[in-house]
Parts: sequence; C-alpha cells; structure tokens
Amino acid sequence: MNPDYVPDIVISRLPGYLQALNQMAKEGMHTVSSQALAERLGSTAAQIRKDLSLFGGFGKQGTGYSIFHLIEQLQLILNLDRIWRVALVGAGDLGRALVRYQGFANRGIEIALVFDNHPNVVGTQVGAVMVRHVDTMVADIRAMAIKIAILTVPGEAAQSTADSLVEAGIKAVLNYAPVTLKLPADVHIQHIDPVLQLQRMMFYLGDD
Amino acid sequence: MNPDYVPDIVISRLPGYLQALNQMAKEGMHTVSSQALAERLGSTAAQIRKDLSLFGGFGKQGTGYSIFHLIEQLQLILNLDRIWRVALVGAGDLGRALVRYQGFANRGIEIALVFDNHPNVVGTQVGAVMVRHVDTMVADIRAMAIKIAILTVPGEAAQSTADSLVEAGIKAVLNYAPVTLKLPADVHIQHIDPVLQLQRMMFYLGDD
Repeated sequence: MNPDYVPDIVISRLPGYLQALNQMAKEGMHTVSSQALAERLGSTAAQIRKDLSLFGGFGKQGTGYSIFHLIEQLQLILNLDRIWRVALVGAGDLGRALVRYQGFANRGIEIALVFDNHPNVVGTQVGAVMVRHVDTMVADIRAMAIKIAILTVPGEAAQSTADSLVEAGIKAVLNYAPVTLKLPADVHIQHIDPVLQLQRMMFYLGDD
Repeated sequence: MNPDYVPDIVISRLPGYLQALNQMAKEGMHTVSSQALAERLGSTAAQIRKDLSLFGGFGKQGTGYSIFHLIEQLQLILNLDRIWRVALVGAGDLGRALVRYQGFANRGIEIALVFDNHPNVVGTQVGAVMVRHVDTMVADIRAMAIKIAILTVPGEAAQSTADSLVEAGIKAVLNYAPVTLKLPADVHIQHIDPVLQLQRMMFYLGDD
C-alpha cells in the first residue's frame, strides 16, 4: 500500500496525526476537516492534505476525514497493526521510569528485555521485567529477534553499547544518551535529549 | 548580533551543532571542517554552512571553523551564556528521574522548582529540591520570574496545568504528557514523546 518513497519529514509527522485523531475519537468525534485537524496540531490544512495525499488521500471533498478510517490507515502505514517488542539498555532512574511508563502498552509497544551492568541492579524486577546482565544482551536480543532498542546508558557507554545492539540485529535505536551515535546507514536513530529541546526554545527567550 | 529572522528549523539544529562541537572539544580537537562536522551529525556540509551563514559565517576558507570560537558564538546565539531556572510539574517516576538527571547542570539548566499534587509526594525531597504543592505553583513561579517549565503530569492533567503555567508567566514548555497542548501563540512548546519517536521508526521496519 505504501508508495515507493515518502520523505522522512512526512513520516515524522504521521505519529502526531495519529495521536491527535485518537484524542478526537476519545472525545466522541467521528469526522474531522483538514482545517480542524491542523488547528489541533498547530499545522496547516494544506500540509496535512499534501502529506496524506502521498498515501492516496482518505478524505472526501466537503465531508472531511472519517476519524476511525484514518486512524486505521495510519496504523497500517506505520506498521502499528502489531505489538513491537523493545529492548531497553540502562536501568538507571530514567530507564526504570520508562519501563514503568503506562503509555507504551496501549500504543503497541512492549518493553520485553531490560539490561544493565551494575550488580545492584541486575536480577532486580522493574515493572514486570527482570533486569538482565549486558553480557547476555546480544544473545538475548537475537533469540527474541527484537529489532528496536531504547538506550538509557550514560554518555560514555552509549557508542559501544549501540555497536553491540547493531551486532544483535537492532535496526532502530531511541537514544537518550547525550551523544551523537555513529551507526550503519541501515540503522534508524532517534535522539531524545531534553537539553537540546530546551536550548532550542531559549533562543526565543533572550529578550525577556 | 542575531539577524531579524531565522527559520525555526535552523534554530532547531543549532543545539545539535553545539553538542557535537563540545564533544569534539572534549576529544582534543581545535578546528573542524564543515564536512567533518556534517559527518558527525549525519548532515551535509552545505546545510551546515548555509545555517551558520545566517549568523555571519564564522569559518575561514581552507582552515575550517575554530571549535572554541564556534561554541562560544552558538552559546551566545542560543542565550546559553547564563543559567536558566526551570520549574518542573509532576514528580512521578519520570519527573523525579529528570530532577536527578546529571545532564542539566553542566549545560546551563537548573530545576529550581518542583510541583506535585499528591500528599505522599508534596514535601519530600527529590535531588536538591523539595516538592511543593501545585496550589502555590502560579505564585511561586511568578516570584522567581521563571520562564521555562517541564511538564511531566498525566495526560488528563496536562492542558489545565499548562494553562496555569501560562498564567504564571511561563513562555516555554517542554511537554512530556502524551497530548497536544493548546497554548497562546507566544508560548513555545516542545513535545517529547518516546512513543511518537518509536512509531516514526517503525514505518521503516515493516518489511523485516
């Protein structure tokens, strides 16, 4: 169903569309215009129509989008019609908070493996998962054929840990460590760093 | 020093440039070409030169950029030549992990106020900060003239809490709640949602 090529910047916006539509469905709405969706997202109607047209449209002139249908289609496009198992490495404060985060399970993500190297942490339970030692990480991830990892190790350990994750067959890394990772081109990386996001806004606060 | 208008997409890249340059300085490097910086960032030399040219350049033909000088200039552009005090609302697992996060202090950010509404949490110490009740949030933020807030409350409470933050004078919100906030146009919002970042990568993993 997907076209041969969709710009990554378009892909990056689809999860946000899906989230807004799910919110609207919860509020009891059944249809939505591109204009109303744009207002919810701080985007423009033209942008949304253009993005969705890459996948064949989905909207009817005059009646807008069926929210239920659009949710279903976006879930198919983003491969969210299944549960994705994820490995998390680094069971410190942030890692443990993520394992216990309620927002994963109801959005198709299961943290199935958790690793750390600290003797006080290995063997302890976090949420429903027991923390394993990083020594068995490559073998354990391979055995479960997991493709996605969340990296919450300290900056110094991030690159070498990421290299091992690639060796284990990981194809997508969500990196919380405050360093830029160098990984093979076929491995997708997303970087979450609250400091970078805060610094970006500080540009606008200078005159106050 | 800053030009009248810089596209937000350019601003969004500057903190990453700064982070890579700081990493290079730590590694003992003194100068860097736009090509080498691009490789580190997964960007292109043309992009970096174009972005930096908006602020007047900084590079010398043939010798590349002085890393120290470029760091200094980027810090000035992003208003990082000071400590920014931040208020955090929602002292759950994630909020507490953020308060204890070591990466803020050495990058100019101080979490000065922490709020929650749960009686078991209010009055307890997290890192160096005591958790205050949200009832005093607007007054406390105003008294300290804080402009930046981190929102780590549950989704249901996010919009009403954000409205109070705006009332308190907050101009930049880093939102961890899994909802799209509606705030006045002069308030900057950055949204951190690991699920959206993971879903974006899942698009590429479908054929495996």
